[in-house]
Amino acid sequence: MTLRHVSHVQSDGGGEGRDSGALSPSAVLPGLDEEQLRLLRRVGREWGRVSAPEAWHRALPVDSDLGRFPSPAEIQPVGWGRLVSVSPLGGRPPAPGEAAGELPPGRLGRFGYHVRRVVLGAALKSTAIAQERMRKLVALPVLSADALSSVAYGPEAMLAVLVLGGAAGLACSVPIAATIAFLMLAVGVSYRQTIRAYPHGGGSYIVASDNLGRVPGLIAAAGLMTDYILTVAVSIASGVAAITSAVPSLATDAVPIGVGVIALLLAGNLRGIRQAGALFAAPTYAFIIAVFALVTVGLVDAAGRGFHPTAAPHLNATESVGVLLVTRAFASGATAMTGIEAISNAVPAFEPVEWRNARTTLTWMIGLLIALFAGTIAMVRLDGVVPGTQETVLSQLAHHSFGSGPLYALTQAATAAVLLLAANTAYNDFPRVLFLLARDRHAPQLFLRLGDRLAFSNGIILLTIAATLVYVAFNGTTASLIPLYAVGVFLAFTLSQAGMVVHWWRLRDRHWRKSLFFNATGALLSAVVFLTAGLTKFTEGAWVAVLAVGLFLVVTMRIRHHYETVGKALRLHPHAIELPTPTLPARPGPDAAPSAATTPQSPTALPDARTEEEDEETPQEIRHLSVVPIAAMDLAGMRALAYAASLHQPVLALHVSPEEDEAERFRQYWTLWGDHLPLEVVVSPYRAIVAPLVHYIEALHAKRPDLTVTVIVPEIVTVRRRYRLLHSRIAPRLRHALRPLPKIVITTVPFHV
Amino acid sequence: MTLRHVSHVQSDGGGEGRDSGALSPSAVLPGLDEEQLRLLRRVGREWGRVSAPEAWHRALPVDSDLGRFPSPAEIQPVGWGRLVSVSPLGGRPPAPGEAAGELPPGRLGRFGYHVRRVVLGAALKSTAIAQERMRKLVALPVLSADALSSVAYGPEAMLAVLVLGGAAGLACSVPIAATIAFLMLAVGVSYRQTIRAYPHGGGSYIVASDNLGRVPGLIAAAGLMTDYILTVAVSIASGVAAITSAVPSLATDAVPIGVGVIALLLAGNLRGIRQAGALFAAPTYAFIIAVFALVTVGLVDAAGRGFHPTAAPHLNATESVGVLLVTRAFASGATAMTGIEAISNAVPAFEPVEWRNARTTLTWMIGLLIALFAGTIAMVRLDGVVPGTQETVLSQLAHHSFGSGPLYALTQAATAAVLLLAANTAYNDFPRVLFLLARDRHAPQLFLRLGDRLAFSNGIILLTIAATLVYVAFNGTTASLIPLYAVGVFLAFTLSQAGMVVHWWRLRDRHWRKSLFFNATGALLSAVVFLTAGLTKFTEGAWVAVLAVGLFLVVTMRIRHHYETVGKALRLHPHAIELPTPTLPARPGPDAAPSAATTPQSPTALPDARTEEEDEETPQEIRHLSVVPIAAMDLAGMRALAYAASLHQPVLALHVSPEEDEAERFRQYWTLWGDHLPLEVVVSPYRAIVAPLVHYIEALHAKRPDLTVTVIVPEIVTVRRRYRLLHSRIAPRLRHALRPLPKIVITTVPFHV
Repeated sequence: MTLRHVSHVQSDGGGEGRDSGALSPSAVLPGLDEEQLRLLRRVGREWGRVSAPEAWHRALPVDSDLGRFPSPAEIQPVGWGRLVSVSPLGGRPPAPGEAAGELPPGRLGRFGYHVRRVVLGAALKSTAIAQERMRKLVALPVLSADALSSVAYGPEAMLAVLVLGGAAGLACSVPIAATIAFLMLAVGVSYRQTIRAYPHGGGSYIVASDNLGRVPGLIAAAGLMTDYILTVAVSIASGVAAITSAVPSLATDAVPIGVGVIALLLAGNLRGIRQAGALFAAPTYAFIIAVFALVTVGLVDAAGRGFHPTAAPHLNATESVGVLLVTRAFASGATAMTGIEAISNAVPAFEPVEWRNARTTLTWMIGLLIALFAGTIAMVRLDGVVPGTQETVLSQLAHHSFGSGPLYALTQAATAAVLLLAANTAYNDFPRVLFLLARDRHAPQLFLRLGDRLAFSNGIILLTIAATLVYVAFNGTTASLIPLYAVGVFLAFTLSQAGMVVHWWRLRDRHWRKSLFFNATGALLSAVVFLTAGLTKFTEGAWVAVLAVGLFLVVTMRIRHHYETVGKALRLHPHAIELPTPTLPARPGPDAAPSAATTPQSPTALPDARTEEEDEETPQEIRHLSVVPIAAMDLAGMRALAYAASLHQPVLALHVSPEEDEAERFRQYWTLWGDHLPLEVVVSPYRAIVAPLVHYIEALHAKRPDLTVTVIVPEIVTVRRRYRLLHSRIAPRLRHALRPLPKIVITTVPFHV
Repeated sequence: MTLRHVSHVQSDGGGEGRDSGALSPSAVLPGLDEEQLRLLRRVGREWGRVSAPEAWHRALPVDSDLGRFPSPAEIQPVGWGRLVSVSPLGGRPPAPGEAAGELPPGRLGRFGYHVRRVVLGAALKSTAIAQERMRKLVALPVLSADALSSVAYGPEAMLAVLVLGGAAGLACSVPIAATIAFLMLAVGVSYRQTIRAYPHGGGSYIVASDNLGRVPGLIAAAGLMTDYILTVAVSIASGVAAITSAVPSLATDAVPIGVGVIALLLAGNLRGIRQAGALFAAPTYAFIIAVFALVTVGLVDAAGRGFHPTAAPHLNATESVGVLLVTRAFASGATAMTGIEAISNAVPAFEPVEWRNARTTLTWMIGLLIALFAGTIAMVRLDGVVPGTQETVLSQLAHHSFGSGPLYALTQAATAAVLLLAANTAYNDFPRVLFLLARDRHAPQLFLRLGDRLAFSNGIILLTIAATLVYVAFNGTTASLIPLYAVGVFLAFTLSQAGMVVHWWRLRDRHWRKSLFFNATGALLSAVVFLTAGLTKFTEGAWVAVLAVGLFLVVTMRIRHHYETVGKALRLHPHAIELPTPTLPARPGPDAAPSAATTPQSPTALPDARTEEEDEETPQEIRHLSVVPIAAMDLAGMRALAYAASLHQPVLALHVSPEEDEAERFRQYWTLWGDHLPLEVVVSPYRAIVAPLVHYIEALHAKRPDLTVTVIVPEIVTVRRRYRLLHSRIAPRLRHALRPLPKIVITTVPFHV
């Protein structure tokens, strides 16, 4: 049989055609290669030697076709949510609030359920994520929030460094800003090429791994993740600073306010906010309008003064204005560029033709960014503004232009709102990077998982924890966070654009030289900024980023190694299968008809020494022994015994008794019952149950390592959750104690009360 | 068959002959009554109709007798520990540090293991608690630590109230003290009677439940537990106060020091300190000697002054000296009596004849208590000492008698040590009360359990948490804790002695009238103190105790109700068993010999409507269906399928696929393998695995509620613990999601990597 026609799904983790920035889940199920298929066929033949498939198929007591999930095409988004209801199996749509088995009885349980549902929203069991498209005028504000909001802290960071050089330092602000503007242009044009090359979305990780190799890809991922964590931290810090500039009395509570906002983001993202609606377009537009208005008014005022810059207040220069100072200021100011890659990440969200629309939007964004940035710097120069700790630079400019009236308040509010939106963008992208890493088995598989509300809960939680830690550790001040931020962002930029260079070099389709030139320029400049930021600000915090990247590399490589080891262990491998003779021993139980009891042979140990490994691939290789720990002759115990016996495998009942008298009594009960199954009583002092059980099973296993021992444990299940504390959790404790032993299977037979 | 000769073990939770203050574990395994025995016999006959026990016994592939634990008689204590090594099954004694399966590989795992072992000691898998006996001269200090140490805070509490009445108030101290001394005598004599009546140990809970009924018993238990929690809190607070009196610079850190000491007690008790050695006798003797010396020196000094009391410093009376003040002072001072019941609790620990030795020791203790208490009050009067916040009363007395030299330091050290010992006594007794409550099913069964080091870990932890909360909430000051303390202690006293009155009334053996009189007196006086303390100090904190007792009652009654419900549900009950015709369908699999494939009949649903209940008691009532969720055709999946098939029950394989293409590919693999088992593929978008699985199984269950569905899940087990995060925990999540459904059994088949 050939499998050619489905070969395009057969991605074995290689690099072929992995243009998937999209959430394509099939790649996590790698296909089988030729050798495995051959072995599979062979194993199947062994199965067929002693059983007839038709018997198995006919024996099925129920029709297994119970309904299907609808196809993705049938899914339409509704309202604010980006999630749609999908009928569960059986065709019946879910009633509102109905979640099978999730509505606990009892008032307290219901109260807790309602609290969870209010905070998190209804649990979505049968839903899917609708693919959404955005018009350019909506995509622009949503996706450029990160980049444009950087204007709130980028110039300030630059000025904070220059101010150390006194008036002479401040005089350099315009040339440095011009350089940064040029950098924005170069990188923007560079990313236009990326959009063309990766129409399904090309983040730094994908581009770098595809083109530069695994380790550069991981380094890019590390840079990205640092980028996102710090986007959250810096945006929140900056937003809180905007608020405390307007309301100085809140300044002492800055850190708790920031943590509260992060918590809000957490809850909202766990709910699965859909970030594509018009609601999210408003803050960015408001911010753009506000800053433009600010700049316009300021220019008009300055025109009235004949464009003479207002003298800045007298400053003491604490450092000399040299190359070091200038480059540090440059690196800090370059953080105004963070967020440029948002559009190239989200190309599939545009309306067709996706890449053209994305390029256009990117161009608009770059234009706006340069305009806002240049305008801000110009106003700073003209108004003689100096960065301070009480008030942000933007706030001071707003004061100059608008006074202290409602316009000023609106500006601050718009700044805070756009920064919140920028942080939210990080909440979208960070889990995606983790998803991609997990798909390539560099991160734990749990990051592939969609949570209750079909959001990447694990990634969201991890981002929240990391951002909160960073925010609190640096005490919520933007200035301390900027060095880390610059390093992470420009690392990702450099590797992404370098990867594009390699891409064009390999591909050489039309216009490749032009594209290569642009990408190369961007890569070079980004590398300069990266090195600058890393070296000059090393002691100020950049060392943390370097350390984090190194640690990240080690961890991901180890994770990948582990998964590869597991994958190897899971491969079917050829081994000699010794089969017992065709006349198999008759099993005990109902098949031994009441008349003649056939003498069963005791199974002999396999000749080969492979008794410890768990590589049985056919049913006839497995030799069973069921052990039923039974405490009392009650209904739960009877049920477990009946279950064990109904499997027609050898059964041993095991009773752990605290003292001899009780053991004797139990034996009498057993005899009264009819002594149907072999019973073993272990007398163990002082009511320790798990330890003697584990010892016994270990001893059994040591005696007969070829047997697969199934421990069948009755478990009492209470309706109300709080009563669970009242019953001993023997099954989990047994499981935990027996975990290291191979070939011990634990079955839990529930008894509902 | 009669079971008379083991009837003495057959305690069905009634009150017959429950003289067990001893840790008798058999009582938790209640026997079966006549009706249950009859049903058991009947169920057994049903089993016998279709299977022959000999076949089951012969089919056992291994000899089940693998060794025994040694009998309790063979156990001898060694060294400081009260725990002894016992050879595990198989006769081989455990090697040092060897704990099966507990030594994880890898350096980090080993480090953690060693840290735990250093803090907690070696895990004891095969040990038992040795029963110890104490000589009177050792028992006296160990068991009277609680009572005698109360002298450190009792007088101070009384004086703290009296001082509000100024000098007139202080003048009442001697009459009030005389009353308290008389109370001590009365209660002491009363407890001598209790010892005679309960030679196996009679705590308030046992005495009250036995004689007064269940609810009074529970109230007594609540009082006891409050008593113990506050013993820890007050003793620690008082001990820390003794230390800060000597070293005033530590006064600001009083609360953390106290919490640290409680943590020390926690660790020590979890390790299983044996509190019977000479080491523990020393602190009490040192304290006794110190206080006697203090009093003697003081008396000598006073004799030199002609016994004229030194004038106390001028005091402003803030309250009038009336009945209220006096009774409040009396109630506070009565806390000097706490701990008297310690000896009657621990009668079995004495050497034979236990009760006589216990009575003698109790007499000595009462004598010492009265002497120390009276001496302290006399010195307070003679030296004109006034309670203050900087220094305890005892410390001031020590200063007066000893100056500030080493004798003073020794006194403070002895005080602190004896208070520590008193707190430790609470750590012994609190878990015992919980054990007794759990034995009577008023508390969760987990309090019956002995932990790693054969200590009642759960009770110890609960006590620590409660005591720490109380200590921190009241800011570590003794004065605030005293009202709560008094209420709890005297509630237990009252109910205990009232129970004794009823006991004598019913029993009427020799000297019953005398004993009844003494007990009645003690009960009356204790009741007076209880009401006094409760009413006069209601607003000062006694309301907490009242609330706690009420809450305790409610909780324990609910717990008992739940256990009774469970017990009822677990009883075997008669029901009509419809059996299929004797010619049972042939099972699919190897028994269907390669030649003829018999057509199996599909099992019909039982005529009666009881398809939802889990009360199958015979194997033939159980109809199986195994469902194997399989993700990929690898070794783990093959093993799970082989395991399922080897059980000879109908099997359905279930594959959850993220998209149609992958589903098609998987079906092809299945066909390549030979399509031996029925396969159902569920296409579920975005890699949600658990939700579709649960839905499918729910739908199956709804369609055929008579089937017992066994879900056989392959689980990857890694050697190193940290890698466990890397693998999805489907089995626990499935278990949690399927928990509310009856008749769903989950089996986990491990695959070790």
